[in-house]
Amino acid sequence: MSPSNICATSTANLPLFIGIDGGGSKCRAIITDDNSNVLGCGVSGPANAFQNLMLCQQSIIEAAEKALVSANINVSRISELIAGIGLAGVNVPSALKAMLQWQHPFAQLHLTNDLHIACLGAHGGDNGAIIVTGTGSCGYRSVNEQSLMLGGYGLGIGDQASGAWFGQQLVKHVLLSLDKLAPATQMSTLLLNKLNCHHSLAIVESVANQSASFYGQLAVIVFEAAADNDALALSIVQQASDYISAIAQRLCQDQSLDLAMIGGLALTLKPYLSDDVASQLVRPNMPPEMGAILYAKQQMTP
Amino acid sequence: MSPSNICATSTANLPLFIGIDGGGSKCRAIITDDNSNVLGCGVSGPANAFQNLMLCQQSIIEAAEKALVSANINVSRISELIAGIGLAGVNVPSALKAMLQWQHPFAQLHLTNDLHIACLGAHGGDNGAIIVTGTGSCGYRSVNEQSLMLGGYGLGIGDQASGAWFGQQLVKHVLLSLDKLAPATQMSTLLLNKLNCHHSLAIVESVANQSASFYGQLAVIVFEAAADNDALALSIVQQASDYISAIAQRLCQDQSLDLAMIGGLALTLKPYLSDDVASQLVRPNMPPEMGAILYAKQQMTP
Repeated sequence: MSPSNICATSTANLPLFIGIDGGGSKCRAIITDDNSNVLGCGVSGPANAFQNLMLCQQSIIEAAEKALVSANINVSRISELIAGIGLAGVNVPSALKAMLQWQHPFAQLHLTNDLHIACLGAHGGDNGAIIVTGTGSCGYRSVNEQSLMLGGYGLGIGDQASGAWFGQQLVKHVLLSLDKLAPATQMSTLLLNKLNCHHSLAIVESVANQSASFYGQLAVIVFEAAADNDALALSIVQQASDYISAIAQRLCQDQSLDLAMIGGLALTLKPYLSDDVASQLVRPNMPPEMGAILYAKQQMTP
Repeated sequence: MSPSNICATSTANLPLFIGIDGGGSKCRAIITDDNSNVLGCGVSGPANAFQNLMLCQQSIIEAAEKALVSANINVSRISELIAGIGLAGVNVPSALKAMLQWQHPFAQLHLTNDLHIACLGAHGGDNGAIIVTGTGSCGYRSVNEQSLMLGGYGLGIGDQASGAWFGQQLVKHVLLSLDKLAPATQMSTLLLNKLNCHHSLAIVESVANQSASFYGQLAVIVFEAAADNDALALSIVQQASDYISAIAQRLCQDQSLDLAMIGGLALTLKPYLSDDVASQLVRPNMPPEMGAILYAKQQMTP
């Protein structure tokens, strides 16, 4: 009997859990057994229930199937999985309703928002707060089953300090600067090179109708220029830092709470945070998809 | 013989001109005879060559046909019209190229951008500068056939001080305020009422995927609150005023130029402009579509 058969046999009669973290650019899945041993994992594309419901459900299934394959478990056994899913976009009532009507393939599906599972993961199921700065941004706290969510409204009207916000601020300020309506900045050359453009209108063409993920990929330019003391780049980073301070203050108002920063920009932003916020930060315990499994275990029907 | 027949006969052997002003939300057409007598006019929907080429071309034809009908001229005579068209979006090279390849129905088509015809109209064909604040925004000057264009890059990355920009600033600041990350503002109640919403997430749902025109329609709320001395509204208006001052300064640098403000927000913004900008302003002479006819007359082949 090969090792993979042993594994398949050993899990045959025990519940299998899948934790899924669905976000605006990626969907991550992890499969564990009842003892929290990780058996497999998988990643697929965007899974935001509000932005694109069909794609979201496809991404969930794709990530789950990839996780099953990586665990050497037949994909037909998706129907045995007890799923905890934290999903971007389900804070919008219409999107939540649509997801609850989904004819999903799992044995059980326990659905909550992506912030909830991230917070459960970061603090191992304990009370705590998180600030997420990835492609989007937001704040969340969970204290004795009561939660508070701040921001996360999307590019243009929210998501300050997120990757997409940095990218959009970058483009906006470079265009002002190239029009000589704002001081010169290193970011102009960096952006023109990155987009392989020679003037403002070519930039506008390059970024037209692009997604938040696209803008998020430009964020690095702001930090490159900030590290080189570019005044405009530093002022953008300072705005982001002020926003994070305001979120942190609101989340931890009147109580001592562990606060974790997560998301692709968390480590990049850390050196620019004010001392009082930086000193409050703890390292996240587990990734969001493990938080999703904690959630499934809390909610599961026997 | 009825008066309309007389009119039709009198124009039968003389050139007919059509001036078309195509913008992001509307397309306006005006028909004149060789003596600049207005014979008819028509309005249709969006005509931005970059945002939606097909719709843009449809809107141009629809506005032209409406203008012919209002002039009591058979629509088949569209093929006799000498057209001057000023179009939003043709400053983007790919959009210009596509428009130049258009199998248009006119006898002649003389194409330029919407700012050029607006400036020609505002200053009756003379040197001058304009600042447009409608759904979008931008600055333009034309001096001895040399032009300079500033801004106008679209919502999110440009178009500061435009209607859509005001609407988006409004939503952004109201969401911050409802999250208690910014001070309270009258604009919150005004926006919630306008959108028939009761909380932040309902606002986010209402504005999701909405067009610049939609945001532009919210701009009035900022001015309502500013008139009532709402601090946050006043700070948004001040930002817009600063941007307009910067544009005005760049346009009229080193030369004495007539400057006109045009677009739906021009009169609303005027009281908030700095004295040096306000004192520089002249009233626009003619509308952009008449500027388009001036352009056609400059460019026409005999």
